[in-house]
Amino acid sequence: MPDNVTSMDALQERLSASPFNDWMGLRIESLTEDEITVSVRWREEMISNPAARYTHGGIIGAVIDTVADFMIAAKVGMPVPTVDIRIDYHRAAMPGDLTCTGRIVRLGSTNSVAEAYLRDGEGRLVASGRGTYFTAAARKD
Amino acid sequence: MPDNVTSMDALQERLSASPFNDWMGLRIESLTEDEITVSVRWREEMISNPAARYTHGGIIGAVIDTVADFMIAAKVGMPVPTVDIRIDYHRAAMPGDLTCTGRIVRLGSTNSVAEAYLRDGEGRLVASGRGTYFTAAARKD
Amino acid sequence: MPDNVTSMDALQERLSASPFNDWMGLRIESLTEDEITVSVRWREEMISNPAARYTHGGIIGAVIDTVADFMIAAKVGMPVPTVDIRIDYHRAAMPGDLTCTGRIVRLGSTNSVAEAYLRDGEGRLVASGRGTYFTAAARKD
Amino acid sequence: MPDNVTSMDALQERLSASPFNDWMGLRIESLTEDEITVSVRWREEMISNPAARYTHGGIIGAVIDTVADFMIAAKVGMPVPTVDIRIDYHRAAMPGDLTCTGRIVRLGSTNSVAEAYLRDGEGRLVASGRGTYFTAAARKD
Repeated sequence: MPDNVTSMDALQERLSASPFNDWMGLRIESLTEDEITVSVRWREEMISNPAARYTHGGIIGAVIDTVADFMIAAKVGMPVPTVDIRIDYHRAAMPGDLTCTGRIVRLGSTNSVAEAYLRDGEGRLVASGRGTYFTAAARKD
Repeated sequence: MPDNVTSMDALQERLSASPFNDWMGLRIESLTEDEITVSVRWREEMISNPAARYTHGGIIGAVIDTVADFMIAAKVGMPVPTVDIRIDYHRAAMPGDLTCTGRIVRLGSTNSVAEAYLRDGEGRLVASGRGTYFTAAARKD
Repeated sequence: MPDNVTSMDALQERLSASPFNDWMGLRIESLTEDEITVSVRWREEMISNPAARYTHGGIIGAVIDTVADFMIAAKVGMPVPTVDIRIDYHRAAMPGDLTCTGRIVRLGSTNSVAEAYLRDGEGRLVASGRGTYFTAAARKD
Repeated sequence: MPDNVTSMDALQERLSASPFNDWMGLRIESLTEDEITVSVRWREEMISNPAARYTHGGIIGAVIDTVADFMIAAKVGMPVPTVDIRIDYHRAAMPGDLTCTGRIVRLGSTNSVAEAYLRDGEGRLVASGRGTYFTAAARKD
């Protein structure tokens, strides 16, 4: 795996410049050569079912997709388009902040695979997933 | 495939009661025994990249997940938890309303599979996907 | 969608030249501009569980992957590498020949998406799936 | 995560009793509370393309599916049906034995998620994937 080419501050700036990522309150908590950890600031509009009050699966998927992509961004200099993604839902995410950790499975010049794991405030695994990212887009930039 | 057990109005009421689905402006445009069509009202906060201005993949995934689930809801009486989902991104979705059509691939008593196709205002396929849904939850309700 | 560039005979020749596809007894039954149908010749070694005698999920996945890929081959001239695939298992496939139909969801110059549906001798849906295929490989050939 | 309830020998017996798993020459090399490692004995019929001679993606998917399932079998007493699976192909697998390691992502009473990583003789990652498994089937046995 090559070294990171983007700093945590530069990645945060890019993350916050995205209206929807900003809406979700995504904040990079740590970044190493192998792993990125991002927090999600819960908000009322994230709720799926008004009675059960758990977080919408689409928010969960959006976070996993973004966090996996931003670990790739650390290596290639920018987030790249998602080709496809799989999300597994392990338990309902009740209101409260979440933490998501991303890792690269395989970095390729055209397509890459990265994964992410989302945990609730008690550290329980809420969801996880993996996607294919079009890393060739970073070379065109 | 069994007949629908839920009317379009009842499904719309359930859809709008969900804070995040309401935030996305989801509106059921039509419902038959085989297919549901839902429109998405674009909003500025849905943007991913502020320069390119395309819609965030997480929004796209959220719509596909919800629409597939609501076709199942038409058959079993309520939306049910997503077990896992795959989303394929076919082209960038530029600002503007979107339309998503859902169908059931296989209805089972424990797990079911449904798919959805998302199109932009010119009818171009933007994304599609399929998920596994925990239909057993509807029996417990 | 562009026209087919490969004939059914040429595709069958390519299919049969592949040792594992030949082992599975894959035979193209029909090919149109939109759809390919392939039959699978059942054999004892395809069994997963010796007591229940249903077909191994890996065989089912191999068929779906191959059939989706060969519909792409009809359009781009050759089968191309699978980037990733999702398989959904709908019911156990008991001993007997199977039939699989493939379609393209979206043909792209770098990555494409195709899907396939596998049915048993009574026409029941046994499994289905969709994969991302690296169509750029066909241009290099 | 609960303790294993099945020994390596009992799992190997179950694995070898399956005609297709036996055809693939699957052998459990090690089993801990967290991980199972299985070797694959290469054979000529596993080839996809006769010129390039790499292993068929269907074989690779079959191995990943089986190995993920057998780590679940160690916990629940038997392999259980695959609900759905995603396979990512990272590089061509050239002729030669392969080694696959499986882990559980989340063990549930109805559905569980497990993943596996397949490496070639030089330790290079060839493919990986994750599936949903119907663990409720083990309770009925």
